[in-house]
Parts: sequence; C-alpha cells; structure tokens
Amino acid sequence: MNVLQAPGKHMAETQLKDDHAMRLREAEHPQSLVVRFGADQPLKLDAGVALAPFQIAYQTYGTLNGDRSNAVLICHALTGDQHVANVHPVTGKPGWWETMVGPGKPIDTERYFVICPNVVGGCLGTTGPASLNPVTGEVFGLDFPVITVRDMVRAQAMLLDHLGIDSLFSVAGGSMGGMQVLQWAASYPDRVFSALPLATATRHSAQNIAFHEVGRQAVMADPEWRGGRYFAEGANPRRGLAVARMGAHITYLSDAALHRKFGRKFQDRANPTFSFDADFEVESYLRHQGSTFVERFDANSYLYLTRAMDYFDLAADYDGVLANSFRGTRTRFCVVSFTSDWLFPTSDSRAIVHALNAGGARVSFAEIETDKGHDAFLLDEPELLAIVRGFLDSAGRARGLASAHNGKR
Amino acid sequence: MNVLQAPGKHMAETQLKDDHAMRLREAEHPQSLVVRFGADQPLKLDAGVALAPFQIAYQTYGTLNGDRSNAVLICHALTGDQHVANVHPVTGKPGWWETMVGPGKPIDTERYFVICPNVVGGCLGTTGPASLNPVTGEVFGLDFPVITVRDMVRAQAMLLDHLGIDSLFSVAGGSMGGMQVLQWAASYPDRVFSALPLATATRHSAQNIAFHEVGRQAVMADPEWRGGRYFAEGANPRRGLAVARMGAHITYLSDAALHRKFGRKFQDRANPTFSFDADFEVESYLRHQGSTFVERFDANSYLYLTRAMDYFDLAADYDGVLANSFRGTRTRFCVVSFTSDWLFPTSDSRAIVHALNAGGARVSFAEIETDKGHDAFLLDEPELLAIVRGFLDSAGRARGLASAHNGKR
Repeated sequence: MNVLQAPGKHMAETQLKDDHAMRLREAEHPQSLVVRFGADQPLKLDAGVALAPFQIAYQTYGTLNGDRSNAVLICHALTGDQHVANVHPVTGKPGWWETMVGPGKPIDTERYFVICPNVVGGCLGTTGPASLNPVTGEVFGLDFPVITVRDMVRAQAMLLDHLGIDSLFSVAGGSMGGMQVLQWAASYPDRVFSALPLATATRHSAQNIAFHEVGRQAVMADPEWRGGRYFAEGANPRRGLAVARMGAHITYLSDAALHRKFGRKFQDRANPTFSFDADFEVESYLRHQGSTFVERFDANSYLYLTRAMDYFDLAADYDGVLANSFRGTRTRFCVVSFTSDWLFPTSDSRAIVHALNAGGARVSFAEIETDKGHDAFLLDEPELLAIVRGFLDSAGRARGLASAHNGKR
Repeated sequence: MNVLQAPGKHMAETQLKDDHAMRLREAEHPQSLVVRFGADQPLKLDAGVALAPFQIAYQTYGTLNGDRSNAVLICHALTGDQHVANVHPVTGKPGWWETMVGPGKPIDTERYFVICPNVVGGCLGTTGPASLNPVTGEVFGLDFPVITVRDMVRAQAMLLDHLGIDSLFSVAGGSMGGMQVLQWAASYPDRVFSALPLATATRHSAQNIAFHEVGRQAVMADPEWRGGRYFAEGANPRRGLAVARMGAHITYLSDAALHRKFGRKFQDRANPTFSFDADFEVESYLRHQGSTFVERFDANSYLYLTRAMDYFDLAADYDGVLANSFRGTRTRFCVVSFTSDWLFPTSDSRAIVHALNAGGARVSFAEIETDKGHDAFLLDEPELLAIVRGFLDSAGRARGLASAHNGKR
C-alpha cells in the first residue's frame, strides 16, 4: 500500500478508441489518486471472503487542515464515480456534482477537504469486476465476489485510515451514496460528525429491486455478455446495458419532468412516421442516454452495484429495529427528499427521520418541492444547495472550523 | 368474407411444442370464430395504406336478442386477446376477464351478447405481423403496416357490420382497451349507447412512451429478433421479449402491492446468496412473468401494439380540443380509475371526464381506492364489479333491455 499514483497521461489516442483497452486501463491505472492495499490488508466482505490485494481510486479537492477536522467524504451513486468536481477523464464532461462541490459552493473546497472514492465493485479504478484477478491474471468478471454497501463503507474507512483521518466533518451522498452515508453513521458513529443522506432509504423497496432485476436481465440476456466473460472473449454487451440504462433512467425522472421536457413532441417533424424509428423526442433522448452510458460504464459493474443496493437493509443488521442503527449517536443529520422522487419517495426519508428521532439523534429534515424526480439531488436545485450550505455552516461552527475566506464571506 | 370457422382441434401435440408452428397456426387458423374480409373490403389504415385481405378472430358469449340491441363489445388491452371468458386455447388458463364477464357476472352473458375481437396487429388470429403476407407468402414481420388505435376500431366496426349489429349497447375495456372505447365513442357516436373506459387516457404520456420504447429496444436488441424476420430465420427473441415484459409488468402493479406481496423476502431461504440468482421473491416472480409471456405472445406484435398506444392522442384528431371528440354525444359514459394506478393515473381519467362534461355528455366517474395498481381493472375488485353492474343495469333500463332471469334476480 501507500502507493499514491498521479493521474496517468500516457494513454495513446488509438487505445482510447478501443472500449476494452480504455476500460481495462481505467480499472487498473485510473486517472485518479490510487491507494493499493496488499495481501496483509484484506477487505473483509459480507459475503464471507476477503478481497486482497485491492485498490481504491479517489479524487480530493481542497486542503486538509492542521487538526484534520475538515474532511468531507462524498459517496457516489450507482453510476457515479470519484470525479465529483473535475472534468471526467473518460467523457470529457464536467464532474457530476459541480453545482454542490467546489470553491465557494455549498460543499466549499476552500473550507473543506473533500474526498470522493470510487466504490468497491465500481469500474473507475477501485477494484471491481473489470479489474484483474491477481490469481488468474484475467479480468474478474463474475469471479468477483458479490459486495454490499457495508463493504463499500469498510473500504472507505481503510482509505481514511490510510489518509490519517480519524473523524470526518461530514459524509454526504444521494441515492446509493445516501445508503453509504447511513451505513457510515451506523458502522462508525464516532467517525462521523455530520451526515447528509439525500434522496435515499435504509432499504431498497420491492419495486426498486424489481427495476434493478429487469436491468440485470437485460444485460445478461445480451449474448455479448458471454456469462460475464466479455473481456476475455472480445465481446461487449452494449445493447443489453443500454436497455438497462434506458429503463433505469425513466425511474430517475418524473412523469411531470418528462412531460415538461418532451410531452408528446415528435422528433424533427410534425407527424408520426408510422415506423419504429425514434418518432418522439423522448425516445431519442432515452436512446442517447443508453448509448452514452455504455461508453463509460462496465456491464458487470452495473450488475454488482445494483445487487449491492438491493441487498441494503440497514435494520436487518440491528435485529430489524432501525432505531438501533443510530442509538445514542452524536452525529448531526440533515435528511433531504424531493416531492417528485418516486424511486426513493419522501416516505423513505421520513422512515430515516423517525428512526433517528427514536435513536435520540439530532436531525433536520427537508422535503423539497420539485418536478425533477430522483435526479434532483444532482441538479442545480437552489433549495437543496441552500440547505446543504446552511447545514454545513452550522455544523462547522459546532466543529470549530474556521470560516472560508477569513470572514470575507 | 363471411367465412365463419369453428375452433380448430386438429393440432398435433408435437406441433404444440413448436413455438413457431403454434404461433403461426394461431395467427392464421385461430381457435376462435373468424371473419375474413377480401380484397374488395380493405381496412383503410391511418398510415395511408389499405390492408386486404385481412381477418378478424373473435369470441362471442350469450345470445343476440331479436332487435339486436344487447350487444356489448369488449376491447382487450395490450397483451390481451379475444379469450375473455373461456379457457385460453394456448395457455389453458381461464379467460382474462372472467370476474367481469359470464352468466350472472356484471357483464352478464345471460343478458348481453358479448363480442371480443382480437385487435388488428395482434397475434391470436386477427391479421397482424405474425400473419402471412399474401403478397409474399411469408410472415409479414416488419412488412406489416404500423397500425393505430383508430385502425383497430375501424376493423371492429367492419366486424359489427358483418354481424349485422348497427348499435352497441355498450363498449367496455381497460388500458389500451379503454383507448379503443374512447375512439369508438368519438368515431361512431351513434353506434355506442354506453361506454366504459377503464384505467385509460385520451393520450399516452411521455413517461409511458418512454417505458414502451425501452420494451421495444429490449426486443430489437435481441439478436434473435433478426430485424423482425425471426420466423423466416428460425429464431425467436425470447429473452428480449421477456425483459420487455418484466419491465412493463412492474408498471402494471404498484409499489404498495409489490411490498405487500413480496416485500424484501428471500426466495426459499433466510439469507442472501451473494449471487445473481433470483434471491428475492420479487425477482423470481418477475422472471416467471417474462418466461410465461413469451410462450403466448409474438414479439413483433408487441412492437406494433405498444406503438399504437404511443400514437394514441384523441384530441389531435379534433384540432387539439379534446371536448370536440365528444361534442353533442348521446352516449352514456362510466369512467373508472384506481388510486394506485401510476401508468394511467386518476388525473388522466379526470381529463376524460372534463372533456365529456365540456362536450355535454352524460358521464359518471369513480376513482376506486386500491393498492393493486393499473392491473386492478383485471382483478376481482368488488367496487369495480358493482360499479359496472350498476351502470349497465341503469343503461339497460334506458335502452329497454329485458332484465336477465325474467326478473328472478
């Protein structure tokens, strides 16, 4: 371990055009900071096996202060990654949370030291199914052990140990990221000063499991998936993964948002074509979502991460009593939901708040009115940004953090 | 035309095991009544082409009375067919609406003459993409013209002409069936005495189009689909169609119903397997839904019928003013929605009611409290059954229909 690696720049343009080469390279030698844990530091998984050696790819923003008290861990969602607030090395697009994280932003990198690791099971440099299996020298594929949200969090704790950070000022994330936030607060209450679980739940609902299962079946139905051995066999289940993404994408939005954005508008014409072309704008939008996703994501990683979300059930670790997950916690919580989020509806967030109240926690809760659906947590949603800023400001005062800009703001 | 054919019984068991042989046989020589329209009686389609020759497969129940005033047309939904109230010849299961239709049932076959045709574009005997193209002698596949809900209704009107029925006592149907009901009332107001559009809408929403598009992409992504030529090439896009069905099936239920039925219960065990097997009961349920569906349905038919639903926009034919669809109508309407139906939510039914009111129609409306989602219209839902019975009883008195059982009930 202790091998920190600078972002790699030596990738040939021709290689970039090769999906597999690009993906394998990003899995092994990501354009991120990397910490490698050797055989002496295995990650003990809920599945009962140990993962070793393994690595975590991560990005950081800002500076750790002298008493190491200003670290904010950001946990990414299902298809997110560590590139929160920098240009993405694969897609060339802005970071996925630039509205929230950066200089002067609510999670202010002039004030906080922000860390975002790629999750275990991911495909952007932390060990996952697209990584090389040290035993065989081949890509793991389905030989990678099934992982859980708790495994992701265990790995992150090892990263923080490595960075010498005992206590996080805050942990923040939405959706699967919010699950990690809740798991952090439950597993390591003394290491979490404040927590921001956004648009999330303490367990995945039957309907959400069902949607994930359809996505997995779409991937596995693609003959190019090859039983998960597509890297070894020179195949790529692009079409199956694109279908999975299209279906999932609908669940991230809302009926109202789709209506507002697309309605029943035809694509580039006034009337139907009476064909199976993408006649409606919403169809071509979805097809675009599917095809761009497969450029940047690994199909097996999609299987593993959806599975981890399905397995998440925080109360199950505490004899089915959710309040016991947070009993006696001193962490300050800010729970946020969105009115039009039907994937993680407000009722899920209320269940979190009730459990936190029952556990005696300090918690504030906001339901934000928006038609943007589940994806609202990723968007430029002024009320969300104001809530996060205010919550962190208040927690920062309690933590004794200096304000940014020497009081100029 | 005028060729009525008795249900066929001469199919060998060995053929039944052959998907293609069974499906092609059911498409050409269905185990139903059939009327064939020759080249002199084309079906003029919205796509601008004429379909001829073509046939309609249908079932009837009960007896047409002397003045031909007791006919009820039932319009089936996307994956339904004409087998409303008899054992299904392919699946061996009961008819899809036996709670509603039969002797003494709300749509009482001792009182009404019930007709249910398979829709144009279907795969149970009415001409559709699985039928033989008379020009080539091969299965139509994608050479079948794209059809609309209005085309389905035009074909049904030809069937009624053939049966010598000028005026329907009632037209009833849910979902895509309800779209046909609305189209009937708009296109042929003088032929519809009463109408029961259930769990439906005057146009398909952007979100619903999006879900359909994912289903179509799942079918077309399956290499066994062969550009729609799977019959000719001895293939079958079973996996793609199963994925499409799984995704659609979630939309027919509700979060609450899935939670009540399955929750997070594991399949045949107490703990997760840490694998991609169907760990949760809801997963194996969905897989079962997918695999049984492909036994009875044609993949191309699924493409055509979802497309017809997407194109449905009743107001578009009336300068965008929905009320004009029903202006001056004398038809009596009973509109029903279900609280947990998120595919065709109550707001869609309210829009129908508002348009009917604006058009001066006689309309009653019920929103039924249930957690069963969109599928509620197919289920043993006592309030629905009572509403339909009461509405038809009242309409029957207005029509001067004799009550069933000589007043014994």
